[in-house]
Amino acid sequence: MDEKLIIKKYFSPLSHPVDSFGLSDDVAQINVKNNSQVVFNQDSLVAGTHFFSSDDPKHIAKKSIRVNVSDVISKGVIPYGYFLSIALDKTINENWIKRFCRGLSEDQKKYNIKLLGGDTVSSENGLFITINMISKSSHEVIKRSTAITGNSIYVSGFIGDSAIGLSLIKNKSLQEHLSEKHINYLLMKYHLPDPKFNIVGLLRSFASSSMDTTDGLFHDLKTLSQTSGVNFHIDKNKIPYSRAAGAFLKHNNNFDLAYFGGDDYQTIFTANKKNHSNIIEFAKKIKVKITQIGFVGDKQRKPILFDENNERISNSINTFKHFK
Amino acid sequence: MDEKLIIKKYFSPLSHPVDSFGLSDDVAQINVKNNSQVVFNQDSLVAGTHFFSSDDPKHIAKKSIRVNVSDVISKGVIPYGYFLSIALDKTINENWIKRFCRGLSEDQKKYNIKLLGGDTVSSENGLFITINMISKSSHEVIKRSTAITGNSIYVSGFIGDSAIGLSLIKNKSLQEHLSEKHINYLLMKYHLPDPKFNIVGLLRSFASSSMDTTDGLFHDLKTLSQTSGVNFHIDKNKIPYSRAAGAFLKHNNNFDLAYFGGDDYQTIFTANKKNHSNIIEFAKKIKVKITQIGFVGDKQRKPILFDENNERISNSINTFKHFK
Repeated sequence: MDEKLIIKKYFSPLSHPVDSFGLSDDVAQINVKNNSQVVFNQDSLVAGTHFFSSDDPKHIAKKSIRVNVSDVISKGVIPYGYFLSIALDKTINENWIKRFCRGLSEDQKKYNIKLLGGDTVSSENGLFITINMISKSSHEVIKRSTAITGNSIYVSGFIGDSAIGLSLIKNKSLQEHLSEKHINYLLMKYHLPDPKFNIVGLLRSFASSSMDTTDGLFHDLKTLSQTSGVNFHIDKNKIPYSRAAGAFLKHNNNFDLAYFGGDDYQTIFTANKKNHSNIIEFAKKIKVKITQIGFVGDKQRKPILFDENNERISNSINTFKHFK
Repeated sequence: MDEKLIIKKYFSPLSHPVDSFGLSDDVAQINVKNNSQVVFNQDSLVAGTHFFSSDDPKHIAKKSIRVNVSDVISKGVIPYGYFLSIALDKTINENWIKRFCRGLSEDQKKYNIKLLGGDTVSSENGLFITINMISKSSHEVIKRSTAITGNSIYVSGFIGDSAIGLSLIKNKSLQEHLSEKHINYLLMKYHLPDPKFNIVGLLRSFASSSMDTTDGLFHDLKTLSQTSGVNFHIDKNKIPYSRAAGAFLKHNNNFDLAYFGGDDYQTIFTANKKNHSNIIEFAKKIKVKITQIGFVGDKQRKPILFDENNERISNSINTFKHFK
């Protein structure tokens, strides 16, 4: 069963139509009092699906925090604190917990957030982590549904590092042509997403729509275009790669890994094209790499993702979700 | 490792000292704007620990909702909506989801709540459910830390039904002396807690401190007394049992199952003794059974739970957590 279909068919009818955006956005937004919103994001990580049980507990902790921070900041909102629910199996000892909590502690400082509550339970079957990130906000969140025809399309950071890092773990022979520095960089990018806090101000100033990239750049662009009901035109040649990813792609030529591979945790957003130079200037100031990769086309009932040759970008056969 | 120790040693130092009550209460409370709080509760349920995988998915859904509703209403707060995170393993088919969502839907109507968001992920290893229940409130929550010397101690509903129900599942020979009606009642009480929404008004009017009972009555009374820093004096003869539990206990004489068995999902609270007759009258009106089972004793650095003979109530050897 496809998770998106399950959500659409079974969970959406149960959802609050206003507060939850019908489950069609990254976050929920609850109006508490005039001009005071609380924004919520909930993401779960399962051993064997989102990380390996043998991963450094500090990295598991940070990844759990960061996938949620990524969601929240991509909506133009600053996180306030989080709830942690963790199911611990028998392989977990006190040392593991200690290191896991050190990871939490370091990221609490990095993002200026605090633990607000949660639940610790024991599990017969593996490790399971749910984080619910909370933000207080006097602004509305930036939605997925509000991209406008003629807008430019931007992406933060580099694309593909994490998916390439994972491929290097799964198939060591792929590491052959890479320098040790590049290998370490790509592995670290897989283990530890690094959402850029500073992007919040830029998004609040300029973005007409936004979301973070988790399922793979083209999947997420498709989601954004469909939620807004507009075609997207993407120039594949403009997609930004790190030097390490560039070195990998030069030898392997497997661009689908970058286009469709997941876990980038970057932000994609749309903005009025007249603000282009302001956006680039702002991005320089906050030291966040921002690249224009396309523009928003016509309104459509069934929006299409086009490439630079005006050809339809189809789902790759190699499409994967996380690392299954 | 003991979960309470893990929380105290590793998670409490990471927690927000005000909003989370240092992780020493059932809920967290975030002040959003003057006199506007949002109250949060997060509980996870794991297959094999909190329910059996073979249980009716409708019951699993309702139990997941209700353990959270129980927490929230026991703090004098009305739930508004919830986030659901669910990890589905390969044994889950569409029919399962459909029935699970029917359970959610029925309880959404019962408690007037809506789904606000969440996450659906796939799992290699069994079913995990986390629910985060949200309430908007213009009141402060009723805390665990505010029981006052001289207060009366009350409990809602009946004690022991769920733990006895579970013992009947685990050891069928225990069913011998019971009528079919009593067996069905006790099994249903295990499968489906039934927190009484109406108790919110009573708690708001009279309770000085409160919490719900999940770990077993005496464990939870001990927690309440320790968080408030006062001795509790409990009259075991006053503990209320259903007819079915009474019939079981008459034959088996295993009162520890009622005293220390978990999953009651009732409310324990303290109140000024001069309000006793008002409390009993209010309880009759809202059709919730309320029983006085003791009184609050002196302030203590290390509070003790005493029985009717002034003997210390120790942890039973038969203490169990959920159904391990």
